[in-house]
Amino acid sequence: MSREVVLVARPEGEPRESDFELREAVDREPETGEVAVRNVLVSVDPYMRGRMRGMRTYVGPYELGDTVDGAAVGRVVASRHEGFGEGDWVVSSLGWRERGVAAGERLRKLDPTIVPPSTALGVLGAPGFTAWWGLVSVGRVEAGETIYVSGAAGAVGSAAVQLAKLKGLRVIGSAGSTEKVEWLESLGVEAFDYRETPAKEALVDGIDVYFDNVGGAQLESALFALRPFGRVIACGSISRYNDAAPQPGPRNLAFIVSKRLRIEGFIILDHMARFGEFVGEVAPLVRAGSITYRETILDGIENVPRAFAGLFNGDNVGKMLVRVGPD
Amino acid sequence: MSREVVLVARPEGEPRESDFELREAVDREPETGEVAVRNVLVSVDPYMRGRMRGMRTYVGPYELGDTVDGAAVGRVVASRHEGFGEGDWVVSSLGWRERGVAAGERLRKLDPTIVPPSTALGVLGAPGFTAWWGLVSVGRVEAGETIYVSGAAGAVGSAAVQLAKLKGLRVIGSAGSTEKVEWLESLGVEAFDYRETPAKEALVDGIDVYFDNVGGAQLESALFALRPFGRVIACGSISRYNDAAPQPGPRNLAFIVSKRLRIEGFIILDHMARFGEFVGEVAPLVRAGSITYRETILDGIENVPRAFAGLFNGDNVGKMLVRVGPD
Repeated sequence: MSREVVLVARPEGEPRESDFELREAVDREPETGEVAVRNVLVSVDPYMRGRMRGMRTYVGPYELGDTVDGAAVGRVVASRHEGFGEGDWVVSSLGWRERGVAAGERLRKLDPTIVPPSTALGVLGAPGFTAWWGLVSVGRVEAGETIYVSGAAGAVGSAAVQLAKLKGLRVIGSAGSTEKVEWLESLGVEAFDYRETPAKEALVDGIDVYFDNVGGAQLESALFALRPFGRVIACGSISRYNDAAPQPGPRNLAFIVSKRLRIEGFIILDHMARFGEFVGEVAPLVRAGSITYRETILDGIENVPRAFAGLFNGDNVGKMLVRVGPD
Repeated sequence: MSREVVLVARPEGEPRESDFELREAVDREPETGEVAVRNVLVSVDPYMRGRMRGMRTYVGPYELGDTVDGAAVGRVVASRHEGFGEGDWVVSSLGWRERGVAAGERLRKLDPTIVPPSTALGVLGAPGFTAWWGLVSVGRVEAGETIYVSGAAGAVGSAAVQLAKLKGLRVIGSAGSTEKVEWLESLGVEAFDYRETPAKEALVDGIDVYFDNVGGAQLESALFALRPFGRVIACGSISRYNDAAPQPGPRNLAFIVSKRLRIEGFIILDHMARFGEFVGEVAPLVRAGSITYRETILDGIENVPRAFAGLFNGDNVGKMLVRVGPD
């Protein structure tokens, strides 16, 4: 008998424990073409907050009473798909549960001798791909440019700052604790704590690109700082996800015209055809230690809601994960 | 002795007559390479409001005590440049004055037998080029798409809606009077009066592209209506130019990510190398009557400030001009 986390109420403001329920799942055996997986680490991601709202956007909402889907890594416990055998490490969309069954085509096998499987949820998974795609395809960054990354110590941000450094950019990053700032500085980032230093001050030299993970006041400061022909890589706005009602945007959107800015949003689900190219470029960098990563790991499936809520309080350094089983 | 309009105070809110002064100019003869021009029609344009603020953006501000520069068409009265002879029609940047002297290189000769010279200030001048560049290069519009153009009966808007129609788009346009709406309808535009119909209602079918001349509430409505991968051609925000203090932006910028929108600003001064291509494409359309235009013309240089202020009240149908001399 395994357990899973079910959405039972649509969060208003900050997600609370009472919005979720831990339930016993009815385990079943895999049918032809399917694989049963015991999850080891499950991912909590900021984008999930949007899916809890109950409105269709680029993906359908989570329905009340359903287990929360999302990225997870685990081990195959039973396989009726020729591509997978017992004990294999896989990354799946099985989400917030201890055990699940999925079609083999929806799984990707991981080789734990190359990089730790947990990286498939972070620097070599959706967050890393988001950083890479944002820089390369949306921002079209060039060596010598200056980029500002907000939420720079998060899963996406910490990949973005390092990739940008490797591509020859000057990198400024913001985060919300001394520990995070020190980590970013160790990566060669000009880091500041946004709770202490107004972004406008930190960006006074000007920037060419803004990688926006945060929205709100950081976006307004970035619009002030952007040079002519600057770009905003619109990735997320975690500062706004818990707003009960939508808040007004920046007061300085007039800069879009006068500075000829481009603000562009993206969702990596649209670009999975390029995922292999991303892994091909970035996995060797991770293996070689040229790109490092950190993880904040809570223990036990009962702590998934707390881990998720913690994303919005900046509880995570690097990728936030929950361990729901042994390796 | 000729007259000119000088900026004597930086407007606060709506421009007032008292922000300007009509002065007698000290006329001079052209020196080698220069041409003396008697202006016939001078242009008043929304972008001028920004230059009156006193902050450098993409061009320097108007200085207090200076004549207001801008586009004008007129006749050569004396030439010391081999490219121009007395009586030639020219378009210049001589602005709000009855007579001026300019370097020949800064003038463009017009052939009044092809199209009326006034078109060089409107549909075949900066406003038309703005519409063309915005659609082609910024919006990259395609046949079959739906575009919404705000300020659709203005100089830029009325060129944009017609070019978009010719390119095979479904075109929705807004304007602020029954007369304007009727004109737009006669051009095949699905037009509405934004004072009577909320844009959100008029755009309920969804749009692919928004040509933004207005900003503010229209931008918010367009962001709601835009389909995935939609684009905002950020051209201007006339609803905001007279704000004493910057106002907050739309409440729904989160759509930029969830709908993967691209919002891009532009200034045609950056793209003058393509002006010839624009004229080559659009002048024949104007000549053939496939693209029509309207002009609102006030008489007498003393009415330039009133014409300018009128832009922000929607006094103009099509291009707003002031006649400062006979043909």
